Amino acid sequence: MGIGFGRRKSKGTTAERDLIHKFWAAGWAAVRVAGSGSSQFPSPDLLAGNSTRKFAIEAKATADNNKYFTEQEIRELAYFSSKFGAHPLLAIKFDNRGWFFLNIDDLKKTDKNYVASFKIAELYGLKFEELISE
Amino acid sequence: MGIGFGRRKSKGTTAERDLIHKFWAAGWAAVRVAGSGSSQFPSPDLLAGNSTRKFAIEAKATADNNKYFTEQEIRELAYFSSKFGAHPLLAIKFDNRGWFFLNIDDLKKTDKNYVASFKIAELYGLKFEELISE
Repeated sequence: MGIGFGRRKSKGTTAERDLIHKFWAAGWAAVRVAGSGSSQFPSPDLLAGNSTRKFAIEAKATADNNKYFTEQEIRELAYFSSKFGAHPLLAIKFDNRGWFFLNIDDLKKTDKNYVASFKIAELYGLKFEELISE
Repeated sequence: MGIGFGRRKSKGTTAERDLIHKFWAAGWAAVRVAGSGSSQFPSPDLLAGNSTRKFAIEAKATADNNKYFTEQEIRELAYFSSKFGAHPLLAIKFDNRGWFFLNIDDLKKTDKNYVASFKIAELYGLKFEELISE
């Protein structure tokens, strides 16, 4: 992609913070999980909740039309969510088009990965306001 | 007392990791929250959950007989828990005597702080196995 890891990581962290702001502004609570992806236990990027609902979220931002998730990311998200008692969600921020929220089943499986295309996000994804008012 | 911040922090982190292990070993999921205490939003040290229960936890370890919590820590724990939909808990690991879990109401209020003494923990606290089997 021509951009270094540092910059990609920063883009991801900024996106996560943006999402956390949105949840708090809507009256929910949300946190970033420490050591996500490096802990010995599976863990999502974010947890969000209100009195009745809980989401475990893998959050990614992209300037592209496709965002990829590894099999391991998806498997761990599903496993964590089943243990914690949360609904697993993929949150993808497409540049200039905002956040879309997808279920694991919405992703397209390829040989090695899961793909969330912008087309899939538009068809099956929820916008933030739809997600929290469901 | 008499030990530097680095060591205290390390002791705290080790204790948090120990507690996370215990939850996973018991079939729950648990995570450390990123930037707890420094984020612009209130957040607990840990979140733990299973299919029906959620805990927001401030976790501290001590070699002493008293562990102090600031008013702000307690206020933020209560606020976060009400928004996220979790039960707020203080988890205190007394050296050689293991973990005790207290409700906010169990703490003794002083002028500036809340105190969990070992005596209070023994009287009102739950041990880990009691907590998860409640």
